[in-house]
Amino acid sequence: MQSIITVGEILVEIMAVRAGEGFREPIELIGPFPSGAPAIFIDQVARLGAPAAIVGAIGDDDFGWMTIERLRRDGVDISAVAVHPGATTGSAFVRYRKDGARDFVFNIRDSANRHIRIDAAATAAIAAAGHLHVVGSSLGAGPVAAAVLEAMDEMKRKGGTVSFDPNIRKEMLDAPGLRAAMDRVIAATDLFLPSGAELHLFSDRPDCATAIRDLLDRGVSAIVHKEGAQGARYVDAGTDIIQPAFPVGELDPTGAGDIFGATFVAGWLRGLAPAENLRLACAAGALAVTRKGPMEGGSSHAELVHFLAGLAGR
Amino acid sequence: MQSIITVGEILVEIMAVRAGEGFREPIELIGPFPSGAPAIFIDQVARLGAPAAIVGAIGDDDFGWMTIERLRRDGVDISAVAVHPGATTGSAFVRYRKDGARDFVFNIRDSANRHIRIDAAATAAIAAAGHLHVVGSSLGAGPVAAAVLEAMDEMKRKGGTVSFDPNIRKEMLDAPGLRAAMDRVIAATDLFLPSGAELHLFSDRPDCATAIRDLLDRGVSAIVHKEGAQGARYVDAGTDIIQPAFPVGELDPTGAGDIFGATFVAGWLRGLAPAENLRLACAAGALAVTRKGPMEGGSSHAELVHFLAGLAGR
Repeated sequence: MQSIITVGEILVEIMAVRAGEGFREPIELIGPFPSGAPAIFIDQVARLGAPAAIVGAIGDDDFGWMTIERLRRDGVDISAVAVHPGATTGSAFVRYRKDGARDFVFNIRDSANRHIRIDAAATAAIAAAGHLHVVGSSLGAGPVAAAVLEAMDEMKRKGGTVSFDPNIRKEMLDAPGLRAAMDRVIAATDLFLPSGAELHLFSDRPDCATAIRDLLDRGVSAIVHKEGAQGARYVDAGTDIIQPAFPVGELDPTGAGDIFGATFVAGWLRGLAPAENLRLACAAGALAVTRKGPMEGGSSHAELVHFLAGLAGR
Repeated sequence: MQSIITVGEILVEIMAVRAGEGFREPIELIGPFPSGAPAIFIDQVARLGAPAAIVGAIGDDDFGWMTIERLRRDGVDISAVAVHPGATTGSAFVRYRKDGARDFVFNIRDSANRHIRIDAAATAAIAAAGHLHVVGSSLGAGPVAAAVLEAMDEMKRKGGTVSFDPNIRKEMLDAPGLRAAMDRVIAATDLFLPSGAELHLFSDRPDCATAIRDLLDRGVSAIVHKEGAQGARYVDAGTDIIQPAFPVGELDPTGAGDIFGATFVAGWLRGLAPAENLRLACAAGALAVTRKGPMEGGSSHAELVHFLAGLAGR
């Protein structure tokens, strides 16, 4: 199958142990966990045994080394991850509030991630890949967005495919240039994977069905609409199926959307039937929320099959 | 008495709960604690009831708000702390190794601290102060060093005094411009507070006594040589005294040097006799190492007197 590449932020995540409001006093934390939406995505691709690579940047610090060592161990090609000795690996602090909402403190924009470029190593990695996955969270920072768009143009030029997960927090939508970058990406997107209201980011049609139709009419080949605990819907020119979510005890949803997406994208490139693929992706998302830590929730194909077999046996 | 001002980094510190090597796997952490050598220094000045102000910069995030709220509550004038919405408040991760050495991951250079400038608020705060304290750790980053030197030139121009604590980690000595900035600061220093081998940063004389004499000959009015658990030595043109350290159980040494220095500088400006002042500063340093968290170790004058009275009673 085609090798999958992504371009974007590598982070560590530090989590508050207990729910509460923000970080305004010393509290118990746990971390660093490997994180960053593109990194979580590509790690899951590799765990499924699919060829995977990432273009990224870390500082010469324990946070960065830990994260790329995890990616390498799981099978991701990290030859296009640059190490910037003067910079610090990006980080995100997260605390769940009692209502399930989250407080964040981010160190991303001014971290090593701002040094992401399509250098010689990145060019070689893109040349070896047949599919690019774009995460919207990478499009908010100028230099990273430029690298993503450069990789995208090259992937399309050589006949490769593109998947796109907006993965945009409301607070990010005002970032300078973000909207323009997202519009360029959706125009090049083959497989679109919005969550919830993100479906409506690129269509002014009022309901899901007409928004999906609008996007398909404008050149997107297939859409997977993720609706969290409600499940997911797959639509292309000839198919429209819904997979209800599998009921699991949610421990930590961070990363579940990326792991769902990685599983679907890998299956799509392998040519799996949409219904089977959607079922596998929902299984991956379900397993992800039962584990603490963004990248800890990934699963191998065997684990997904085992999980689905367990459901069938009940 | 003259108001004391400092210019430099405001951070939070996140500490590993248990000793070990680095941050290459998820571990238990505790934080954020208010930190940054200049911030720890000025907080202790204020705790002693002396007029105190800081020129600094934070991001619009919980880490920054927590730290300046602590400073404000303890009595520091924070009118010259700028809030930079696009930036992240600086942070430092620290883990003690089993041999007492420390591993760090820093996010300082590219944090909000790089935006420290002598703006209108800083100019007003410097105009209101009679003494500037400089910490060498602020001199490693270009824009911050420039702000420190600008404040120093203005303080000397108007006849104020300057104290200088090199507080330099070995790893920092190669930072571009650091050496030149430190040389400018030592030339303007009235009260010099080196720790251990830092005494020899500005004199090639081989032993402590001649290095001290050399510095006094070159215009430094007084030197306090901090030697950790061995105690401290005060030398000026007519005085040379040693205060042995007070024996305490060490829990966390971070910040103790800044708290020692703040206590000595405040007493020096108040005109305390050197022997009494050195005793108070050693008491402040001793109490600081018994408390976890860099700024948590500060003490009021009453606490210092109580601690010294307790020793006398034994």
